[in-house]
Amino acid sequence: MKALTSTGLRVNDQGIWILDQTLLPKQEKWILSSSVVDMVEIIRALKVRGAPLIGVAASLQLGILVEQGLEQADFERALFALREARPTAVNLMNCLDRLLFISREEGLAAVPGEAVRIFEEDVELCARMAKNGGSLIQAGERVLTHCNTGGLATAGVGTALGCVLWAHGIGRSVHVLVDETRPLLQGARLTTWELARAGVPHTLICDGMAAFKMQSGEVSRVLVGADRIARNGDFANKVGTYGLAVLCKYHGIPFHVVAPQTTVDPTCVSGREIPIEERAASEVRSTWAPESVPVWNPAFDVTPFELVTSWVMDRGVFSPEDVQRGALVDF
Amino acid sequence: MKALTSTGLRVNDQGIWILDQTLLPKQEKWILSSSVVDMVEIIRALKVRGAPLIGVAASLQLGILVEQGLEQADFERALFALREARPTAVNLMNCLDRLLFISREEGLAAVPGEAVRIFEEDVELCARMAKNGGSLIQAGERVLTHCNTGGLATAGVGTALGCVLWAHGIGRSVHVLVDETRPLLQGARLTTWELARAGVPHTLICDGMAAFKMQSGEVSRVLVGADRIARNGDFANKVGTYGLAVLCKYHGIPFHVVAPQTTVDPTCVSGREIPIEERAASEVRSTWAPESVPVWNPAFDVTPFELVTSWVMDRGVFSPEDVQRGALVDF
Repeated sequence: MKALTSTGLRVNDQGIWILDQTLLPKQEKWILSSSVVDMVEIIRALKVRGAPLIGVAASLQLGILVEQGLEQADFERALFALREARPTAVNLMNCLDRLLFISREEGLAAVPGEAVRIFEEDVELCARMAKNGGSLIQAGERVLTHCNTGGLATAGVGTALGCVLWAHGIGRSVHVLVDETRPLLQGARLTTWELARAGVPHTLICDGMAAFKMQSGEVSRVLVGADRIARNGDFANKVGTYGLAVLCKYHGIPFHVVAPQTTVDPTCVSGREIPIEERAASEVRSTWAPESVPVWNPAFDVTPFELVTSWVMDRGVFSPEDVQRGALVDF
Repeated sequence: MKALTSTGLRVNDQGIWILDQTLLPKQEKWILSSSVVDMVEIIRALKVRGAPLIGVAASLQLGILVEQGLEQADFERALFALREARPTAVNLMNCLDRLLFISREEGLAAVPGEAVRIFEEDVELCARMAKNGGSLIQAGERVLTHCNTGGLATAGVGTALGCVLWAHGIGRSVHVLVDETRPLLQGARLTTWELARAGVPHTLICDGMAAFKMQSGEVSRVLVGADRIARNGDFANKVGTYGLAVLCKYHGIPFHVVAPQTTVDPTCVSGREIPIEERAASEVRSTWAPESVPVWNPAFDVTPFELVTSWVMDRGVFSPEDVQRGALVDF
C-alpha cells in the first residue's frame, strides 16, 4: 500500500501507525496496529477516534491485511469484528460496507486500493467542508466548539474545526472557545493541541461555562461535528452537543453541524433510531469520585433537526428547508 | 466558646476545626484554624466552601479571636481581611457586617455570642428551607442538582440538597442526578459523599449530560443553591447553573433556587451588580490540558429572574409574582 500521512494516522512499509490520542498532549506516541484485534482495541480505547478517522483507520487496516494474504471468509469475519468496535458513528459502517461490496463485486484484490481511496476521499471531503463552513465565519468572530473535530478526527483538515482552520488560513481573525468536553477531555487535550500548532487564538472553558459566554454575547456561532446524521437531519454527536444546541436556540446563536456525506445514515429515519454507546463509569469517576458511585456515561447525545441552523457538508451548506426536501440523502 | 459541630466544621477548646473539603472523599482531614491568616487561606483554597458555611466559619473565627483578647482596631482589620477572602458569596459580608455592627453597638464582648448565634441560626434556617423545598418533591421524583449544597456547605442540613434529604427523610423515594460540577467537582466529590452517607439513591453525570437526561424526561425538577441573590431575584451560583436554568425553561422543568435570607443582598438591584470571582487557570487545566493553554475560569454565573420557578427561602417559597412585589427584601 502507498505511504499515507495524516495528523493521527500513518501508513508505511511496516503497516498502519496510530498516534495514541489518549496520551495527547503529554506524549506523542505512535503505535503499530498489526491485526484486527489490535485495531478493535485501538478503536474501543479511543486511541484513534473521530467518526471519519475511525472509518478510515479500519478500512486501511483491512486493506493491509488483504495485501498480506487475507482470504474472503477471514476478510469478512475481520470486517464484521471491526464494524462492531463502536456502535454510534456510522462512518465506520459506511466505509466497511463499501469494502465488503467491492470485495464481492470486484474481488479482494480491489480492497487495498479502495481503502486508499477512502483515505484520499476523506481528505478531499474535509477540504470541501472546510471551505463551505469556513466561508460562514466572518473576521472577528468567536466560534465555540465541542470535542475534537480537527486533523485528529479525520484523514484531512477536520470537520467543524477544519472550517475554523480554513477561515484562519485565509487571514480572518477568529477566536475559538474550546469546551473541555468531559469526561474524556477531547477539547482540553486535543483541540487545544491542534489550535496551538496552527496558531489560532483560543480559550479553554469547562462545558458548564459555555452558557455564560453566550449570555455575555461572546459567542458568534457554534460549530460541531457529527457521528451519525439521520435522513431528517437529527444527528448524534459527543455528549454535551444537544445542550449547546438548546442554548444556541435560546440565545439566537447560529448552530452548525459539519460532517461529510459518509456520516449520513440513509437507513435512519430520525435520531430516535441512532444507537447511543454507553461507556465505563470509570471515565466519569476518574480519580476523584467515590469508587462505588453509580454513574451514567453516554458517549453521545442526539440533537434534533429543529435546533440546527445549517448542515455543512462537503456537497454544500444545507438549510432546514433543504434538509426537509431530502437534501441529505437525495443527490 | 461553646462546642459546635456540623458536617464540615467543629468548635472545641482548641479552636475552630475545618474538614478540608479539597481532600474529600479520599481523605477526611480536619485542620485547625488559629488565625485570620489561616482562615483566609482556608476560604480562598476552598477547604471550607458553600456560601452559608463560609460566613459561619469566618464569624466563629472572629468570635474565638475576640475571646482570646483581640482589641477593636485589630478586630476590624481582621474582619475586613476576612470580608475580602471571596468576592461573590454575600453571606460572608452579611455575617461579618452583623458582627461589626454589634461590636460597635454593644462592645466586643458581644461578638463571640453573636458568632455562635450565626451558627445556630444557620442550622435553623437550613431546617426551614429543607421543609419548604422538600415539600415540593413528590415520591418518585428525579431531582437534578449542581455543585454541593448540603451539610458541607452550611452549618445545618444544607440548602438545595437539604430539601432532598428532608424528602428522603420523611420516606419519599427520590433519586438524585448529581452534576459533577467542573472544574472543582464539588458534585462528584462532595454531593455523592453526602448522599451515600445519607443512603439517598443517586447517579453521577458530567455537566454536559444533564440536557440529555432532561430530553429523555428523566428530570422532575432542578434544585440549586445561591451565593448571592439580588433584590429582583437574579442570583449568582456555581458556574453551570445558568445553563441548567435555560435548559429547564426549554424543557418545561421546574427550576428552584434554595437559599437562606443571609444570601440576599438588598443593595444589589439586579444580577448585573454581582461581582463574579475568576479563579486560577490551573483549576481548569488540571493535569491534562497543555500548560500554556489560555483559560477562562469564572467560579460563578448569574441566572436571571425570568428563568426561576420559585425561590425557596427559610421564610417560605416565593413565586415570581412574590419576588416582583419585593418579597425577598420586604418582610
